[in-house]
Amino acid sequence: MWHVDETAAEQIAIGAGILGTGGGGNPYLGKVHLQRLLREGAAPPAVVSPEDVPDDALIVTVGGMGAPTVGVERLARGDEWTVALRTLEKHLGRRADYLVPGEIGGANPTRPLVCGIQTGLPVIDGDGMGRAFPELQMKTFSIYGVKATPAALCDVRHNTAIFPDLPDTTTLERYARAVTVQMGGHAGYAFVPMIGAQLKQTVIPHTMTLVRDFGAAIMVARQAHVDPIAAALGVMGGERLFAGKIVDVERRMAAGFARGAVHLDGLGDWRGRGLTIDFQNENLIARQTDDDVAGERILAVVPDLICIVDSETAAPVTTEVLRYGLRVIVLGIPAPPLLRTPEALAVVGPGAFGYEVPYTPLRGTYGNRVIAGLGR
Amino acid sequence: MWHVDETAAEQIAIGAGILGTGGGGNPYLGKVHLQRLLREGAAPPAVVSPEDVPDDALIVTVGGMGAPTVGVERLARGDEWTVALRTLEKHLGRRADYLVPGEIGGANPTRPLVCGIQTGLPVIDGDGMGRAFPELQMKTFSIYGVKATPAALCDVRHNTAIFPDLPDTTTLERYARAVTVQMGGHAGYAFVPMIGAQLKQTVIPHTMTLVRDFGAAIMVARQAHVDPIAAALGVMGGERLFAGKIVDVERRMAAGFARGAVHLDGLGDWRGRGLTIDFQNENLIARQTDDDVAGERILAVVPDLICIVDSETAAPVTTEVLRYGLRVIVLGIPAPPLLRTPEALAVVGPGAFGYEVPYTPLRGTYGNRVIAGLGR
Repeated sequence: MWHVDETAAEQIAIGAGILGTGGGGNPYLGKVHLQRLLREGAAPPAVVSPEDVPDDALIVTVGGMGAPTVGVERLARGDEWTVALRTLEKHLGRRADYLVPGEIGGANPTRPLVCGIQTGLPVIDGDGMGRAFPELQMKTFSIYGVKATPAALCDVRHNTAIFPDLPDTTTLERYARAVTVQMGGHAGYAFVPMIGAQLKQTVIPHTMTLVRDFGAAIMVARQAHVDPIAAALGVMGGERLFAGKIVDVERRMAAGFARGAVHLDGLGDWRGRGLTIDFQNENLIARQTDDDVAGERILAVVPDLICIVDSETAAPVTTEVLRYGLRVIVLGIPAPPLLRTPEALAVVGPGAFGYEVPYTPLRGTYGNRVIAGLGR
Repeated sequence: MWHVDETAAEQIAIGAGILGTGGGGNPYLGKVHLQRLLREGAAPPAVVSPEDVPDDALIVTVGGMGAPTVGVERLARGDEWTVALRTLEKHLGRRADYLVPGEIGGANPTRPLVCGIQTGLPVIDGDGMGRAFPELQMKTFSIYGVKATPAALCDVRHNTAIFPDLPDTTTLERYARAVTVQMGGHAGYAFVPMIGAQLKQTVIPHTMTLVRDFGAAIMVARQAHVDPIAAALGVMGGERLFAGKIVDVERRMAAGFARGAVHLDGLGDWRGRGLTIDFQNENLIARQTDDDVAGERILAVVPDLICIVDSETAAPVTTEVLRYGLRVIVLGIPAPPLLRTPEALAVVGPGAFGYEVPYTPLRGTYGNRVIAGLGR
């Protein structure tokens, strides 16, 4: 067990921002909220390893859903997830014992930590994605059979909705997304109530520690004036896929998502090449073209992580801040093993996003320093 | 108190079909369901006057929401409202004592009667519209301050949603409509839980008796080969606005509603004139043009009832069955007094539907034989 202090909050925000793969919500606001609560004297929230959780404990996923574009333009009230949790607990007739992040990429690791302060509940060191994905059914909890309902949503006005019993998470995604759009494009959620035994079989473990160490490596490298990207890849595993300048961004809001594509012109070793990355909140596929070769080549595709970072600072460049002229490096990080099984690829592989291409895994191991030994 | 037998079910379906003012759902399927249950030996559901309800009894509105076009193409399971009611009761921790129709026009009077058979609960002789309207906040219960939540929805697969506490019915309308669209365009609801004291102040009373007597007058006239429309107007109040042939129908599905307009060419006394009726599920405004006069004249506008009926049989011609060549008579029926107050006109008057025209009330009294004496 460890506790999240102000420094850890900073590190988590950096690491989570990169693992958001462009989406998952901008972690900046959650970090500021978390740090303010800590400065005001809140007890630092506890982070507990899944293996230390009793098999019969009740764990609930809390966080936020909606388009990241909305998340940065319209401030959250800051307790939507906690009101959603209380609504769910009342419906269940049972209090939660632990919180777990639905996704470790983007804003959704800081929200359970804020909720942990608001409720006094410990937060699981792990999550359901090992990154960020745009839809609810893309969590390992759902992929490996944990029922997502009862589920609760809460908006900025504390308006709530409960889905008592839906047959699958894809149906919850449709119903909850429709309500989220009506709620103004962003809502807090509490769902996938599960017991410890289910958590241990389905969680991607130790990812809160991973994003903290990932962010810490980048911060230390920046201070020491060494390459933060090399330091980051040392912790995370993965490789540089491309370096270039953003030359065009197509972005539209569609059905509650930020969809579009970003186009890059290569720099340095990549001069004379172009890269196009499609996104649906998160980056989905990176395709390279060469000036002197016909056709295009897929460098990486979901569920592997395609992360755009500032070429100097390694700061994450999320979907909603993509703009012409930014010089960036595109990192490819291998997906966690739990996302690479046939069951998982059916839900989070290229075909699930409408791409008729095979999944060719990136080499390496997700989080090689932190969780490689755990076999997940 | 009276009971709904097979004959009454037939009469209610005819009367409710006309008061649906084009929408409210086609009552045919609900009538068939009700009659089948009665033939199979179900106890006829009781209809109870509001004045006989104890002040502390719990009354719940049950029915269906969605586009009528969907309602006739996709059969309801037949117990969506009952599962919604049970979901609401479980959330409230209290059983309902009575059911009340949300709207007496269209399919929503037969649904509480079916629910009454399924649950054994009596049904209130009254409703929240005295007709049909497209949106939830357009019920007198909401106009006169009864809280609409907690509310529950249930779809054909028994998937449910609960809205525990929303600030107003317009918000419920938005959230519930979005979920209904995801549910396939039709859902059963249970909402506006209220006590008898609230019911008595806000209900449009005796409208189940009214639609029964309205339908009975038409059936008797048909059998006696006298004009069914004259007989109907004798019960309901109101007047013939127009007689003609349908020459064009514009219809589209938009945001879960059937929207559009129907165009008529006049016949008989109305030869040389044209009529256009706009609808959003229900008929909203009837505008007449004359071949020899410039401009148009509003014959009737919401909340007054604009009802299209077959010119021979007085059978209701609902929005989803409008088609070229039908010969119809357009009836104008004065709205109940509870819909003509300033509070009500703000919600169901022309402006609420986007028409910048004054409300000029039709002459006469809504349901002059049945409920005129009650002052509502």
